[in-house]
Amino acid sequence: LPKNLLKEFDSIIERRGYSSRSEAIRDAIRIYINEYKWLEKEEGEAVGVLNVVYDHDVKGVSDELVDLQHDFSDIILTSLHLHLKRDLCLEMIILRGDMKRIKEIANKVSSVKGVRFVKFLTAFKE
Amino acid sequence: LPKNLLKEFDSIIERRGYSSRSEAIRDAIRIYINEYKWLEKEEGEAVGVLNVVYDHDVKGVSDELVDLQHDFSDIILTSLHLHLKRDLCLEMIILRGDMKRIKEIANKVSSVKGVRFVKFLTAFKE
Amino acid sequence: LPKNLLKEFDSIIERRGYSSRSEAIRDAIRIYINEYKWLEKEEGEAVGVLNVVYDHDVKGVSDELVDLQHDFSDIILTSLHLHLKRDLCLEMIILRGDMKRIKEIANKVSSVKGVRFVKFLTAFKE
Amino acid sequence: LPKNLLKEFDSIIERRGYSSRSEAIRDAIRIYINEYKWLEKEEGEAVGVLNVVYDHDVKGVSDELVDLQHDFSDIILTSLHLHLKRDLCLEMIILRGDMKRIKEIANKVSSVKGVRFVKFLTAFKE
Repeated sequence: LPKNLLKEFDSIIERRGYSSRSEAIRDAIRIYINEYKWLEKEEGEAVGVLNVVYDHDVKGVSDELVDLQHDFSDIILTSLHLHLKRDLCLEMIILRGDMKRIKEIANKVSSVKGVRFVKFLTAFKE
Repeated sequence: LPKNLLKEFDSIIERRGYSSRSEAIRDAIRIYINEYKWLEKEEGEAVGVLNVVYDHDVKGVSDELVDLQHDFSDIILTSLHLHLKRDLCLEMIILRGDMKRIKEIANKVSSVKGVRFVKFLTAFKE
Repeated sequence: LPKNLLKEFDSIIERRGYSSRSEAIRDAIRIYINEYKWLEKEEGEAVGVLNVVYDHDVKGVSDELVDLQHDFSDIILTSLHLHLKRDLCLEMIILRGDMKRIKEIANKVSSVKGVRFVKFLTAFKE
Repeated sequence: LPKNLLKEFDSIIERRGYSSRSEAIRDAIRIYINEYKWLEKEEGEAVGVLNVVYDHDVKGVSDELVDLQHDFSDIILTSLHLHLKRDLCLEMIILRGDMKRIKEIANKVSSVKGVRFVKFLTAFKE
């Protein structure tokens, strides 16, 4: 692990009051599993939020994202747009539907030019 | 008043149980005033929702609406996007700020190519 | 029509540049029909927003509104909450589904204690 | 690490194509840091989403959450409500403001009876 990351890690460990590094690593693995567990789910109904940060100065990016979302209107409940900075937007796409379809839109959104960051949050873990 | 509108008007009058047409007209004028009262307000803090229906098949329209909204990030809390039909979107722009700025964005949005319908709803009437 | 309303009406007429009062009345009736047209629709798929202004200081009102919305989760896409004033909230309930069910929730919400104002906006008029 | 977690971890490692466990652990630590980095930030403007899963069957919980949010109306842009299951809601509270105030509301929300899960997502990391 690079030194600066290790420093940040230790600083969080201290702040959160862990007794040892290995305890924090266990927690990190738990969060990691939680973060990617949905990858395991091949199908089945899910509710989730696809958080997309993109640069709206890239020509055509908003058009493409809206068009793409209309192709997935069967699983999109709504989407919420937030202004972050002069050039950056956060688009929160609220999804309910089959995991297969959700993964499909997550992949397509990720490959749109101008998209900087995609994070999928399954709103509910049973 | 065209005959078909008059027929619709009478049908609503009956359904809503008015005793006379003039009573319904009074009500219509009250709603009309409510609808346009905000035009009178030159300034002052307001909260409102700008409902914009647009045709996302028109090239560049989503890009232009997002860019425009970033110019008004001082008064936009968030905006919500809904898929209506194959080609139509509803964008609900939630606003809080000075009436002058709100009118400004309402005007600009109305003149974007592809926008079919704009309705401003002041969420609160004191 | 009460004098103060008439005064407001004339002021809007002037601002909007109508040539006569009767022209404005025609417009008022058109808006009125638009506002209540959905009452006529007994069934059929609709998309709409139920705007609910309520006093959150009334004990139990938020609980009741949330519970009620869960009973209609088949037609509610999401709901959006806005702070208006010290005591007033705006809840925007986004609906898609059969007109019959939509009317049902509109009626139930209207009769919740603490609700001051309900306005239904059909997002789309075909 | 409990055996079932280890099994899940290995399964994700395989699916994501890591060459070794230690590589995945490094990634886990990176995600963990990202998740808690905001704890380090004592102040400064931030944009974020507080995701709150709660059981709306617990009496008074919605009332308390709405009341609490009104006390933080200076940093809340809006909040979005999603029905998850018969008894569970997701409330997404969109925040913009000083980190100090954001931490304050995060703490208060976490301690409301009926709240099951709180996850803060800083929408933007500079």
